[in-house]
Amino acid sequence: MSPRVLALCGGVGGAKLALGLARRLPPGALAVLVNTGDDFTHLGLHVSPDVDTVLYTLAGLANQTQGWGLEGESWAFMTALARLGGEDWFRLGDADLATHVERTRRLAAGETLTHITAAFAAALGVNQTILPMSDDPVRTMLETEMGTLAFQDYFVRHRAAPRVRAIRYDGAATARPSARALAALASPELELVVICPSNPWLSVAPLLSMPALRAALDATRAPVVAVSPLIAGQAVKGPTAKLMAELGLAVNAATVADYYGGLLDGYVLDEADAALAPTVARRGCAVELAATLMTDLPTREALAAHVLAFGARLASG
Amino acid sequence: MSPRVLALCGGVGGAKLALGLARRLPPGALAVLVNTGDDFTHLGLHVSPDVDTVLYTLAGLANQTQGWGLEGESWAFMTALARLGGEDWFRLGDADLATHVERTRRLAAGETLTHITAAFAAALGVNQTILPMSDDPVRTMLETEMGTLAFQDYFVRHRAAPRVRAIRYDGAATARPSARALAALASPELELVVICPSNPWLSVAPLLSMPALRAALDATRAPVVAVSPLIAGQAVKGPTAKLMAELGLAVNAATVADYYGGLLDGYVLDEADAALAPTVARRGCAVELAATLMTDLPTREALAAHVLAFGARLASG
Repeated sequence: MSPRVLALCGGVGGAKLALGLARRLPPGALAVLVNTGDDFTHLGLHVSPDVDTVLYTLAGLANQTQGWGLEGESWAFMTALARLGGEDWFRLGDADLATHVERTRRLAAGETLTHITAAFAAALGVNQTILPMSDDPVRTMLETEMGTLAFQDYFVRHRAAPRVRAIRYDGAATARPSARALAALASPELELVVICPSNPWLSVAPLLSMPALRAALDATRAPVVAVSPLIAGQAVKGPTAKLMAELGLAVNAATVADYYGGLLDGYVLDEADAALAPTVARRGCAVELAATLMTDLPTREALAAHVLAFGARLASG
Repeated sequence: MSPRVLALCGGVGGAKLALGLARRLPPGALAVLVNTGDDFTHLGLHVSPDVDTVLYTLAGLANQTQGWGLEGESWAFMTALARLGGEDWFRLGDADLATHVERTRRLAAGETLTHITAAFAAALGVNQTILPMSDDPVRTMLETEMGTLAFQDYFVRHRAAPRVRAIRYDGAATARPSARALAALASPELELVVICPSNPWLSVAPLLSMPALRAALDATRAPVVAVSPLIAGQAVKGPTAKLMAELGLAVNAATVADYYGGLLDGYVLDEADAALAPTVARRGCAVELAATLMTDLPTREALAAHVLAFGARLASG
């Protein structure tokens, strides 16, 4: 079944809206295309942080407090690993570890990340389609004051503290995007593309850096709508604002709209940023004001409903 | 430092005596040479069940009730793995998993099993030397009524139920035995070799099947003493008696002494098997009667003391 809505997202922030969309749409109507630029091999295991965040969120298993990992997680593995002198800067919970071990085993057996993700989603009762952006490796690398850092080194080991000078997406130029995403974008069934409020440079850019995916997004008949990840110049969570400043960008929601540029048919600004609406609109993009802060399930669903309605207006307009 | 006592063992039964010996000897005086014929790759992880049993036992971390794994172990990983549809016939505890993940990572980085085991033992505060029998793969394979089974398939997945027709030790003919064990056997410092009451065919035979180790055991100046794994024709735990019957052997402690044959200078029979003493002695092997059932720490230490005294008498006699 071809999806009616395709959501592009990274980890925590994006997954919140993906869950809202999942709850507002019938089973099977939503596909989520997820960043894999943060994927890395740790302790010999293939870890796909954003895919897992979306998987756990849509399965209703995500930890609501810490923003990553599983609810009710235990840490006996990490404690024992530290006792043996192993690396413990990236914390893998006991239950979460099953995902990484089983995925690594299946990848080694020749299965694709796409196939494995679909199997895990089915096993966890997820009714939506979760698509890794590519089965080929794309790796987000940051040029920082400490030298070149792989994403998790930057984000987790160094807590996003080093100043960033530039970001590149190794492998993106040749990686083949998700075939199912390309098919969805070309399908007349598709009604809306949503760019979730994930970090544009760290979580969405890896997707857009794949030329074939970028071209398919440019060509799709469905409206493309992004939701601002900034509210009044602040990120809800994570280093978006800090990173923008380091990259020499004006830290506000209009800059994000500029970054997505001609890709967008519509842009959802937080109500707190109403003053930016004329600036964005002048660039030819329809603007919608909404309450974008998602603090619980009702606010996720409300924002999703708002985005879906905005998309429907754009499609018919 | 060259060890004074070298103990050969497999898993649970042998590790009990190894712990008794460790507690009766000064730090550094004991080396334990451990079967790796049960090692296997499971879920992409290198699992060394007997090495881990000895490691955990000497570290004081072993589960006293179930006979394998860690005390106070938790099972969140296995539960999550089963939820994902992964293989759950071989149970890996959350803390135990750290050993397998870290070992697999270090093996992939080019370290030897010997080196990794020494590092783990040091990290866990073990004062004795734990030596995997070889860094080369040796794999115990069973010809059964169900066809050829790898050891863990036979032992864990099928609970040692299939009738065994023959056993082979793939790789043993060319595997290089532990260099430190060979050096110990050639050293004038060595006072005693103890073959622990492990299953002779499943746990000790893989060691003896390596020609260079067998030759070094034949040539060592130190007395070689085995402790019977059978008491009144019964194994304390595990399939030894069943297996002997399937192989067409008389199920008693004298058969085990026959199996070790010319390798032995002394044999420790349980007091319940006093009637077998003349049979064993007739074949030119010194016999000692002892209480061989190890139900707790004092009985392990008492048997160890008994074996050490027997060895000292043989060395001076």
